Amino acid sequence: MFPISFGSDNHSGIHYTVISALQKVNVGFCPAYGDDPLTAAVLAQLEALFGGDAAATFVMTGTGANILALQSVLSSFHAVICADTAHINVDECGALQKCIGARLMPIKTPDGKLTPKLIAPLFLLDRDQHHSQYKVISISQSTEYGTLYTLEEIRALADFAHEHGLLLHIDGARLANAAAALNCSLKELTKDAGADIISFGGTKNGLLFGEAIISFVPELSQDIRFYRKQITQLFSKMRFISAQYEAYLTRDLWLECARHANAMAGLLAEKLAEFPQIKLVNKVEVNSLFVKMPAAWIPILQEKYLFYTWDEAKHIVRLMCSFNTLEEHIEEFVESVRELAHSK
Amino acid sequence: MFPISFGSDNHSGIHYTVISALQKVNVGFCPAYGDDPLTAAVLAQLEALFGGDAAATFVMTGTGANILALQSVLSSFHAVICADTAHINVDECGALQKCIGARLMPIKTPDGKLTPKLIAPLFLLDRDQHHSQYKVISISQSTEYGTLYTLEEIRALADFAHEHGLLLHIDGARLANAAAALNCSLKELTKDAGADIISFGGTKNGLLFGEAIISFVPELSQDIRFYRKQITQLFSKMRFISAQYEAYLTRDLWLECARHANAMAGLLAEKLAEFPQIKLVNKVEVNSLFVKMPAAWIPILQEKYLFYTWDEAKHIVRLMCSFNTLEEHIEEFVESVRELAHSK
Amino acid sequence: MFPISFGSDNHSGIHYTVISALQKVNVGFCPAYGDDPLTAAVLAQLEALFGGDAAATFVMTGTGANILALQSVLSSFHAVICADTAHINVDECGALQKCIGARLMPIKTPDGKLTPKLIAPLFLLDRDQHHSQYKVISISQSTEYGTLYTLEEIRALADFAHEHGLLLHIDGARLANAAAALNCSLKELTKDAGADIISFGGTKNGLLFGEAIISFVPELSQDIRFYRKQITQLFSKMRFISAQYEAYLTRDLWLECARHANAMAGLLAEKLAEFPQIKLVNKVEVNSLFVKMPAAWIPILQEKYLFYTWDEAKHIVRLMCSFNTLEEHIEEFVESVRELAHSK
Amino acid sequence: MFPISFGSDNHSGIHYTVISALQKVNVGFCPAYGDDPLTAAVLAQLEALFGGDAAATFVMTGTGANILALQSVLSSFHAVICADTAHINVDECGALQKCIGARLMPIKTPDGKLTPKLIAPLFLLDRDQHHSQYKVISISQSTEYGTLYTLEEIRALADFAHEHGLLLHIDGARLANAAAALNCSLKELTKDAGADIISFGGTKNGLLFGEAIISFVPELSQDIRFYRKQITQLFSKMRFISAQYEAYLTRDLWLECARHANAMAGLLAEKLAEFPQIKLVNKVEVNSLFVKMPAAWIPILQEKYLFYTWDEAKHIVRLMCSFNTLEEHIEEFVESVRELAHSK
Repeated sequence: MFPISFGSDNHSGIHYTVISALQKVNVGFCPAYGDDPLTAAVLAQLEALFGGDAAATFVMTGTGANILALQSVLSSFHAVICADTAHINVDECGALQKCIGARLMPIKTPDGKLTPKLIAPLFLLDRDQHHSQYKVISISQSTEYGTLYTLEEIRALADFAHEHGLLLHIDGARLANAAAALNCSLKELTKDAGADIISFGGTKNGLLFGEAIISFVPELSQDIRFYRKQITQLFSKMRFISAQYEAYLTRDLWLECARHANAMAGLLAEKLAEFPQIKLVNKVEVNSLFVKMPAAWIPILQEKYLFYTWDEAKHIVRLMCSFNTLEEHIEEFVESVRELAHSK
Repeated sequence: MFPISFGSDNHSGIHYTVISALQKVNVGFCPAYGDDPLTAAVLAQLEALFGGDAAATFVMTGTGANILALQSVLSSFHAVICADTAHINVDECGALQKCIGARLMPIKTPDGKLTPKLIAPLFLLDRDQHHSQYKVISISQSTEYGTLYTLEEIRALADFAHEHGLLLHIDGARLANAAAALNCSLKELTKDAGADIISFGGTKNGLLFGEAIISFVPELSQDIRFYRKQITQLFSKMRFISAQYEAYLTRDLWLECARHANAMAGLLAEKLAEFPQIKLVNKVEVNSLFVKMPAAWIPILQEKYLFYTWDEAKHIVRLMCSFNTLEEHIEEFVESVRELAHSK
Repeated sequence: MFPISFGSDNHSGIHYTVISALQKVNVGFCPAYGDDPLTAAVLAQLEALFGGDAAATFVMTGTGANILALQSVLSSFHAVICADTAHINVDECGALQKCIGARLMPIKTPDGKLTPKLIAPLFLLDRDQHHSQYKVISISQSTEYGTLYTLEEIRALADFAHEHGLLLHIDGARLANAAAALNCSLKELTKDAGADIISFGGTKNGLLFGEAIISFVPELSQDIRFYRKQITQLFSKMRFISAQYEAYLTRDLWLECARHANAMAGLLAEKLAEFPQIKLVNKVEVNSLFVKMPAAWIPILQEKYLFYTWDEAKHIVRLMCSFNTLEEHIEEFVESVRELAHSK
Repeated sequence: MFPISFGSDNHSGIHYTVISALQKVNVGFCPAYGDDPLTAAVLAQLEALFGGDAAATFVMTGTGANILALQSVLSSFHAVICADTAHINVDECGALQKCIGARLMPIKTPDGKLTPKLIAPLFLLDRDQHHSQYKVISISQSTEYGTLYTLEEIRALADFAHEHGLLLHIDGARLANAAAALNCSLKELTKDAGADIISFGGTKNGLLFGEAIISFVPELSQDIRFYRKQITQLFSKMRFISAQYEAYLTRDLWLECARHANAMAGLLAEKLAEFPQIKLVNKVEVNSLFVKMPAAWIPILQEKYLFYTWDEAKHIVRLMCSFNTLEEHIEEFVESVRELAHSK
């Protein structure tokens, strides 16, 4: 029905295992709003996966996960330090400002990644009653720019945050891709690296919907269940999120899907290397490529493939792979590029 | 796995047609956030069903539908007049106050239903700069108390609202049940009766998730798409809501499910009439019964069936049927009651 | 220029001592926003007056004082229990809902006064994730209905609040009148009676502007200075509030003004007792009278005197005295009443 | 009591004419909240001064004026474009985010001044449902950096705003200083230059408190009186703001005060030119100087004079004059500088 898409990992569908899980749990009756044993079990499984001492909470959307995670630790007079490319800054229509009343303090970065060095200048100025108080450093792992924090880089940010009395939040809409790329566990990637509150995304990696918030500061986020309802993120038929997550965790489906998406991006990069007219802007670390190509090619390719221009002036496009990107999609795309490359 | 539930219509699962629809649309790639032809087509179908000149919007949850519908027509200094039993007043953890900053003006009613006569006293007092300004009358159809507004009653409320410069909002989480009971079309039930903005629920009536907001004042709610994102209710993989609604509208599945749920409630009432110890509190109009029974029976029945006590002091319980309540569930329940009735 | 007013105690002007204080402090330069020694000294004086261990904060308006006091101890998912006649419920245009995002739980009372017995039914129902959580009981002392809580009544409410994990807030816009009437200290009226956070009004009792928040839970309200700025209640030229409060506290000006206002209300009640056509609705406890009078008299008197109808249907009016009500104002008013009484 | 201050124009006191006006209006009783003839008259006078077709509103604080002006024309999904040095961005503790739920889009500028050229790049990117929608360009006149927009520059920004469907807001906390410096009328500076909504400050220029909002889009800001109450900015004893503004407008006191403050800053600049160790960072256009001086001098001078360091690294300080800065203050300061200059 629709063309092949490298537009976003949310252009993909649902993993068949997840559909099966929905069907399997679709029997009889079940208490709503999470008061069911399946939900309790899957939350416990998630908490164990992140290393224990965590509190897991399900929400419906990625923006919901970010806003609720931050709401649970912020007051309205707080500020969140983030990269200026962060989803919370760019793509959430001011949800944080509306729902929390707090402000963002976005920082320009070369590659979508914050560092203590980039943040430090903020702390040179006094912040008195006239100023929002810094409370959270929020990073995206992997970033909106397709880049990746190493475990050491996360640790350095967590240490910096804690030294200044702040918390480290990870927008993990693509945390699975990061774990796959870094070949580490979710625990190593978050708790062990010092993160305080994170989201663990599912929708972009094979689920129908449903995101998990993992808090390592449960005493700070004890009120999360009230905020969840209040920002309209409490799902009634919760067993259907739980069942998806059960499938997602079984035999590491989350990892398999993420590895596949990453591998497809790697393959695409490899094959595009054939064309001198195309330049990779960043190293391909997870499931997206940012490539510069001749301006004239873009609209021609977009007739056949879904993908977005990232920087019009520099004719950079983003190509994103997902769990259901196939080798033949890539071959077809590369073939189309080859035609363009040889057409003149 | 779980016992038979008369606890809520959100204890039920997903209609098999809806599961099939999810599977059917789960092919290939698709633009996200509603930018796909299926979504456009299903929204148009919905708008036609409600009589044209409407604007339909999909959200994820029932509370999301209420809050977004009201947000689209309210400023923070406004007040919403509602029954004190209204879901927005009782069961949404203050979502309206947080998300909109507005206030509720709840009114006590005998049966969950507002009337112009009950509302009129509010307009005897001046409302100047010290007071929130009335802007919306919000009713639930059917109500949280299992009662039903007739078309004439809705019309009277709409006329009252419009005469006073207000709008009429319908929380239609169970609008399907109301239409089934009144044997009228959705258009007759809303637009023709003078309603301005309504929600048309799906989750309690066989869908997995997804609610529709129908606005007959599109000029007032033109900004709804921005508010939707900002309150975290924009779904990325929108085709999967649209596919559910396509199934829901096909051969009037919504109506069939609602009729069944209503009929089961009627059957249950009929069968319980056998027991002089049990008294119906309200006439059964849609899919729920409020019944008074011997206090001692309640915990015994609750060991085997899921249902909730509505009024502890008066030992009134709520029994709710849904699209997947079967006659044998009712027979089994009645048999259990019979055992209790004969046990002494 | 304007007629004699019994309309409100904010129809009165500024005590001449306060004007003098403004002039006296109007020399040279002074750090802004409260960073000056006078402000520090006056806040300390206030804190001592309320019994130590308190934290005092200046704001500009009475609504500002209520909202900031409550903001400092509430999250958005909380509910505040109050009388339905409370200023925060009736007269603040939904400021609490907008600024805090929380909700009110107003309770009908016979006389503007809450009691544990009136509140207790709220605690019979479970409050789970679907419901705002009760956090504060807010009372007005004296009430908007001209009534007064005894010290024992406040203590009972404080005990009830604390037993249920709640705090007791006092809207003390007219706390001075209450202390004068009860012949007790401000400490006895608040800290000793178990109150947690209160406002101590000045504007209605001889000041130009400026209200004080006194918190006995400084650890809960430690962030009050940030919230103060954020809700636009931080005054730049703070010395001019401090100077007014210095005058207000000197030789108990606050008490003298309040006693006078109360005495004038007593005198007016005494003199109106002459007329069998006039009935006092409540006992006169502080500086206002609620009186029922022949409907025809009201507009005639309102031609010459400023005062407001409280209940149109029952022709009850409110007559309020203030620090600058004089005996001759009362005599003149009574004379006008006498003319009416004898005119037929 | 306090040392001479070049710290801020809110370190100054109240003009004696204003004190007199407070005393003069302090007679008898007066309706509250602006329902008095003096307030009506002074608002009309203000509206006439700004050229008619304007709607004037009084508030208490400068932050209150900014937030209320913007609230009256913004929805929560909107964004305000401003210089990153703007008071609303830097000094209001996130009041806009909390009170309005909207976001700021701050832009780096060389001199605190926005230009169409600096703003234009924002409009290169699509803003769809994922993004806050630009609605207002907000400038400060004079700026926080002591610089000034010419009438042509304001006109260019207003035209740019209107072409893009936006409004132009002016934070005019120091609008009087700007008018004095540009030698133009308030009408020429605002309405004639295309501004839509502005604040006209008083507190920094000789008043005790009280700011005016002037709206040239009354249809957009018709709800301002409700928002004013809701954000706690409605003053009860309004006649005391009106009386101050009456004095402020009489014989152009506002202009006289502003001219004096500007002249004192000019004089200070002139005298400091004597010292080769001191460099003016900007041309002195209104009432503040930004000067670079030897780092060692700063703490020595701060022992005797109140003023703030603007840029620690570059040892730039801000010296601000006000209506009550006297020539002898400047001479004394210059003498102190001279001692330092000659001390080695």
